[in-house]
Amino acid sequence: MSGCPFLGRKLFTSKPSQAEEEDESQKGINKATKGGIVYGEYLQLDKVLNAQVLQSQEKGDKIHDEHLFIVTHQGAYIIFFKMIKCGLCPQVRDERNMLKVVSRIHRITMIFKLLVEQFAVLETMTALDFFDFREYLSPASGFQSLQFRLLEAKIGVADHLRVPYNRRHYRDNFHGQESETLLSSEQEPTLLQLVEKWLERTPGLENDGFNFWGKLQANIEEGLKIEKHKLEKMEDSEVKEDLLAELNKQTEIFTALFDPKRHEHLLSKGERRLSYKALQGALMINFYREEPRFQVPFQLLTALMEIDTLMTKWRYNHVCMVHRMIGSKAGTGGSSGYHYLRATVSDRYKVFVDLFNLATFLVPRSWVPKLNPSIHKFPYMAEYYDSSYNSCSSEDSD
Amino acid sequence: MSGCPFLGRKLFTSKPSQAEEEDESQKGINKATKGGIVYGEYLQLDKVLNAQVLQSQEKGDKIHDEHLFIVTHQGAYIIFFKMIKCGLCPQVRDERNMLKVVSRIHRITMIFKLLVEQFAVLETMTALDFFDFREYLSPASGFQSLQFRLLEAKIGVADHLRVPYNRRHYRDNFHGQESETLLSSEQEPTLLQLVEKWLERTPGLENDGFNFWGKLQANIEEGLKIEKHKLEKMEDSEVKEDLLAELNKQTEIFTALFDPKRHEHLLSKGERRLSYKALQGALMINFYREEPRFQVPFQLLTALMEIDTLMTKWRYNHVCMVHRMIGSKAGTGGSSGYHYLRATVSDRYKVFVDLFNLATFLVPRSWVPKLNPSIHKFPYMAEYYDSSYNSCSSEDSD
Amino acid sequence: MSGCPFLGRKLFTSKPSQAEEEDESQKGINKATKGGIVYGEYLQLDKVLNAQVLQSQEKGDKIHDEHLFIVTHQGAYIIFFKMIKCGLCPQVRDERNMLKVVSRIHRITMIFKLLVEQFAVLETMTALDFFDFREYLSPASGFQSLQFRLLEAKIGVADHLRVPYNRRHYRDNFHGQESETLLSSEQEPTLLQLVEKWLERTPGLENDGFNFWGKLQANIEEGLKIEKHKLEKMEDSEVKEDLLAELNKQTEIFTALFDPKRHEHLLSKGERRLSYKALQGALMINFYREEPRFQVPFQLLTALMEIDTLMTKWRYNHVCMVHRMIGSKAGTGGSSGYHYLRATVSDRYKVFVDLFNLATFLVPRSWVPKLNPSIHKFPYMAEYYDSSYNSCSSEDSD
Amino acid sequence: MSGCPFLGRKLFTSKPSQAEEEDESQKGINKATKGGIVYGEYLQLDKVLNAQVLQSQEKGDKIHDEHLFIVTHQGAYIIFFKMIKCGLCPQVRDERNMLKVVSRIHRITMIFKLLVEQFAVLETMTALDFFDFREYLSPASGFQSLQFRLLEAKIGVADHLRVPYNRRHYRDNFHGQESETLLSSEQEPTLLQLVEKWLERTPGLENDGFNFWGKLQANIEEGLKIEKHKLEKMEDSEVKEDLLAELNKQTEIFTALFDPKRHEHLLSKGERRLSYKALQGALMINFYREEPRFQVPFQLLTALMEIDTLMTKWRYNHVCMVHRMIGSKAGTGGSSGYHYLRATVSDRYKVFVDLFNLATFLVPRSWVPKLNPSIHKFPYMAEYYDSSYNSCSSEDSD
Repeated sequence: MSGCPFLGRKLFTSKPSQAEEEDESQKGINKATKGGIVYGEYLQLDKVLNAQVLQSQEKGDKIHDEHLFIVTHQGAYIIFFKMIKCGLCPQVRDERNMLKVVSRIHRITMIFKLLVEQFAVLETMTALDFFDFREYLSPASGFQSLQFRLLEAKIGVADHLRVPYNRRHYRDNFHGQESETLLSSEQEPTLLQLVEKWLERTPGLENDGFNFWGKLQANIEEGLKIEKHKLEKMEDSEVKEDLLAELNKQTEIFTALFDPKRHEHLLSKGERRLSYKALQGALMINFYREEPRFQVPFQLLTALMEIDTLMTKWRYNHVCMVHRMIGSKAGTGGSSGYHYLRATVSDRYKVFVDLFNLATFLVPRSWVPKLNPSIHKFPYMAEYYDSSYNSCSSEDSD
Repeated sequence: MSGCPFLGRKLFTSKPSQAEEEDESQKGINKATKGGIVYGEYLQLDKVLNAQVLQSQEKGDKIHDEHLFIVTHQGAYIIFFKMIKCGLCPQVRDERNMLKVVSRIHRITMIFKLLVEQFAVLETMTALDFFDFREYLSPASGFQSLQFRLLEAKIGVADHLRVPYNRRHYRDNFHGQESETLLSSEQEPTLLQLVEKWLERTPGLENDGFNFWGKLQANIEEGLKIEKHKLEKMEDSEVKEDLLAELNKQTEIFTALFDPKRHEHLLSKGERRLSYKALQGALMINFYREEPRFQVPFQLLTALMEIDTLMTKWRYNHVCMVHRMIGSKAGTGGSSGYHYLRATVSDRYKVFVDLFNLATFLVPRSWVPKLNPSIHKFPYMAEYYDSSYNSCSSEDSD
Repeated sequence: MSGCPFLGRKLFTSKPSQAEEEDESQKGINKATKGGIVYGEYLQLDKVLNAQVLQSQEKGDKIHDEHLFIVTHQGAYIIFFKMIKCGLCPQVRDERNMLKVVSRIHRITMIFKLLVEQFAVLETMTALDFFDFREYLSPASGFQSLQFRLLEAKIGVADHLRVPYNRRHYRDNFHGQESETLLSSEQEPTLLQLVEKWLERTPGLENDGFNFWGKLQANIEEGLKIEKHKLEKMEDSEVKEDLLAELNKQTEIFTALFDPKRHEHLLSKGERRLSYKALQGALMINFYREEPRFQVPFQLLTALMEIDTLMTKWRYNHVCMVHRMIGSKAGTGGSSGYHYLRATVSDRYKVFVDLFNLATFLVPRSWVPKLNPSIHKFPYMAEYYDSSYNSCSSEDSD
Repeated sequence: MSGCPFLGRKLFTSKPSQAEEEDESQKGINKATKGGIVYGEYLQLDKVLNAQVLQSQEKGDKIHDEHLFIVTHQGAYIIFFKMIKCGLCPQVRDERNMLKVVSRIHRITMIFKLLVEQFAVLETMTALDFFDFREYLSPASGFQSLQFRLLEAKIGVADHLRVPYNRRHYRDNFHGQESETLLSSEQEPTLLQLVEKWLERTPGLENDGFNFWGKLQANIEEGLKIEKHKLEKMEDSEVKEDLLAELNKQTEIFTALFDPKRHEHLLSKGERRLSYKALQGALMINFYREEPRFQVPFQLLTALMEIDTLMTKWRYNHVCMVHRMIGSKAGTGGSSGYHYLRATVSDRYKVFVDLFNLATFLVPRSWVPKLNPSIHKFPYMAEYYDSSYNSCSSEDSD
């Protein structure tokens, strides 16, 4: 029946009046009674509804709340896994389908918002409730949650910026198959790297074309010079001194921005994560975000910052919950618990930190190089969506 | 090792200063390396992470978004199921552990809030995305979600008040084992029935004791009489007429409230759901909620209304999502889709409707029968929590 | 000092290491001590923090919770007002700044989400708490909330589709200045009308150009014909009959879609709200949403549906709260309270109902007219953002 | 008319059937047309809707988004203020009305949750949008938000634990009336102090009565001794050594817990905030939370932790927003901006840190001193609620 595109659809051509509505609600056909796939089978509920084994019960002391503990954790891990497998990376490679890319990244932010709110459910469990079955969990530990580590790696949390775990490399906590999965995932391109490559391709960066960077540097230098002249003409006063001091700071900042060596230095310290060219592309998208060509790219940059923010909020909510549950005790896996988690709520775990720091480089609109759209055309590949559009390509699905 | 209550715990006796914190975060022991249960095993992630079979993929046309569709539905069903098995009913039987009961009901409201918000994730899928794999779902239908039906039945949605499904009884849509599960669940006491029994036991209702109902009736009749006198002494005016008309309405309402036959009549029409005595108990708890004896019972009544409200909000959010996804089309199982679901957002599905309508019977504080706590002692069973406290008793778990 | 673009900014050129962070937090200058505008003045907190007059207090019986009641209502009305004045309409007139338009509409959805959640705060007040000061409110009524009526009118809730208020036209409930404000606001173009005009301009609709509508009709008729042939070749069976019946329904739906008279009829009944041409534009944007030219327009259509959905959710949450607060009593202004509000949760109040119902007209991708981007160029005005960009134009602000 | 308790109420004695509902919605009376207070007046909307003066407009360059900035800030400050004035402290003095106290604290948590979510609205403003009017704000600064400082002080954030602001005491940033208001608010009892006094009164702490602390110490010492014996009988192994090491840690922790001098030391360092006796009361409430007498007190302790958690989440969300808006720039008031705010997300700002750390002192249920309710009666003042119940007493209102 796959040839029939309307199988299973029955329409009402007009909206019923209020009075007809009740009848309208009864006009369907019970197709299910004619055989075919059933809802519970489709969703494989037999598997997922029977995958909760309480350790407290195994050990002869069934504790009610362990069920909640397992179920909320399973839910989160299914979701993390889903994001890794299908929601994230490879699409950014493909310049054409930006709407899809932005939609997917936006979806991930929605999922993360839900995960952040989900703590409210587990927090209905008090420290005393948790104490009742906590010993049965040992030595399993949330640190071992492979899916979250994979997600971090996939987004681009840097290996060398991670907080060590009991003085050891984070990967040492995983063994056998899991350890290999982690290692091989670290070889794959991260979201950060794909975004970087894409930003480097931003049209308008070409030295022999619009030459955004060169023009911007010239404009800013000119602007700062004019400011300085203006300030120097002021009568001497405390205000004048303050303003001059600030202007000097600004000048330093922009001098540093246009110095490629300075960028390399910050990269080596982990304080920047994007290549110099990608940083230029990101700033360009910010300045010209109203241009049709840059509207959706700008939305993407915004969504990437949101992912970073939400991951960090998730971490912080996690810390708060753990503090309630175990005070400053050690975790079930022997970690320092609260203190370890607290240390991971750090900018070192922010992947798109450069996008946040762009705010440091904003300038008055009049300093932004003017664009003549009839001369500077920014091409992109307009095309009818191809048939493979919505499928998971082999690389993002497997 | 079950004899050692601190297994797996290591404490810091004092909170470290800011400066020490980083080191503090590294003071744990890697217990996991010494063997024992591993996190992924504990959560049975192999089962739940591999329970997503895309029908579109089975039919050779893998559609990315079907994965999201399956995963969000699974998540919801795991949670509904959890609520049915462990969160709801039997505890209300037990008058002693009211804190636990209120906590559990509160937890269910938190879960429902999350479920209501979860729609935001599925709504990142547009109608066009859904259209791409919708045909592969047919004839499976969300109506067949046994878990949601069981939850409705368990809470106390009345069989005869349900909207028919394509003109047939809702249970006719289920077959074999599922149909039997539904039927047998309908034999079990509902949350409504347990609450009703508990309300009937409210101390203070005894005719030969505090006789709340009798005293209340006397006070209200007296109060209304005095009001009437007052109004009749006013000069004739439109305002006076309006006030008299309102007072008459009030008098009718209270006359009806104190008439047991009227109650039976409303019960038979489904406009009340609680027994007459339980209704009296609920009103009593409302009036004396500040009394220590009635504080937690009052919280319970509030939480029950919240469950009703949240179920109805969930239904409404569901309707809204379906309208976006399929317009006014029929559902995959052949139902009238949007119109059927719209009809279920109705007060007929509210279980604790009597608690809402109590607001109709509020009276000035001075009309509430005075309580002399040194005479009217409301006993409850104070006792140290017994060892079985946190375990699922056989009836609520397995 | 308006010439100095960096006034008030002091930057750190590099992110400090973890260790330096505490010092870093102390590197600022206390500018506030040097004079200038103070935060409280800037926000005019003296006005807003002193605008809560409790009627219960005026009448000598100060009730604590009336403060919450006033404050939550004020908050909501400030926000509704803000949306009316600055967030909504005029921008859609301007085809060029679609990013801004989509951002503003998105912002409104975020605000509405917050308003929906805000009920949770007022719901911490029980029916009994409200009863204590409810009489002091009479005859003021939430129905009189001019701001909400203005917002409805501005978005495009149709005058003649509104539920009457105690059998009278909704505007009759307002007097003097308020009545005039309402009337004049109804003369202004609504968001619906602006969207309609914009949709009618969708490039590709021209009969002598791409001729989307003509091509689509031809493709669909051809597609349905082929389907019919296929089905007719099947062996006779119940399945065949069902499929043929469904195909006939589909054919009817599309015959109706391509019949301009049918559209006029539905318009007259209020079951469609957009012009025929605008409907075509909306469907076109849906089908070609992946095209760069249509990506942001598609986001706009999605956001408009979200506004509709959120307004209706807000209404429903309001109904639920009112049911808790006053049962089935009359409102303070004399309305039928719960029942009146319940009646407004209706598709008659949905403004962008056509966008929802587009889901009814989806067809297989292969039926969508192919677009040759090298021939069919969809122009839009690419240009550098003009200096007035972010200002409120006189029409949307004043 | 104040004598008529039903003024403004009109009831329906029975719930209408679905079919009648539309008519039911029209049965009210238009009281508003008969004169009396009008909604807009009641809410003083003229004041609050006209209290938005845009500095950008004043300076001749009206920027649209400044309106959003002002409105969201005003909303938050109204709410903070409301909490300070009416929601918080004095009630805890009154042992009798625990339901009211718990409800109020719960309400504050609901408000805080909303405030945390409210950031999503302001975050629809990008760094570039903010840059457009940011200079007009200087030198006003969010640090000057008196209301938030008052709220912190009222809850009990310790003066000496605060992060300095540009190396100066936080109060130095306020002048004149504001400075005095702050100072005098610091003289008033904080929520922490009221809770402390209340906890010290926990029945069962009396040395000559139930003597909870003495009994608990004896039980724990005995329990640890038995554990030690058990472990010593094990065969020598690495596991044995680990367990013994852990047991020693536990023993140290409890030895410290029962040492009043140790408590004084931690108090002096700010690592504990409650008196020794109050800490004992809190632990007692935790252990006996199932007792009717302790159910509502336990809810209060939980709600207090939630306030702390939510304040800290609010701070963290604020930091995240600021990072997006201004990168690592200085704030408008000259503060170090991001870095200053980052430093305030610290346990030093947690007021009820002792309640979190109680989780460190949990013991197996069998170690908790048994309670004989027929002997150990915990009195509380049961009484009919007095007429002043719902009014703001002079101290908490004006």
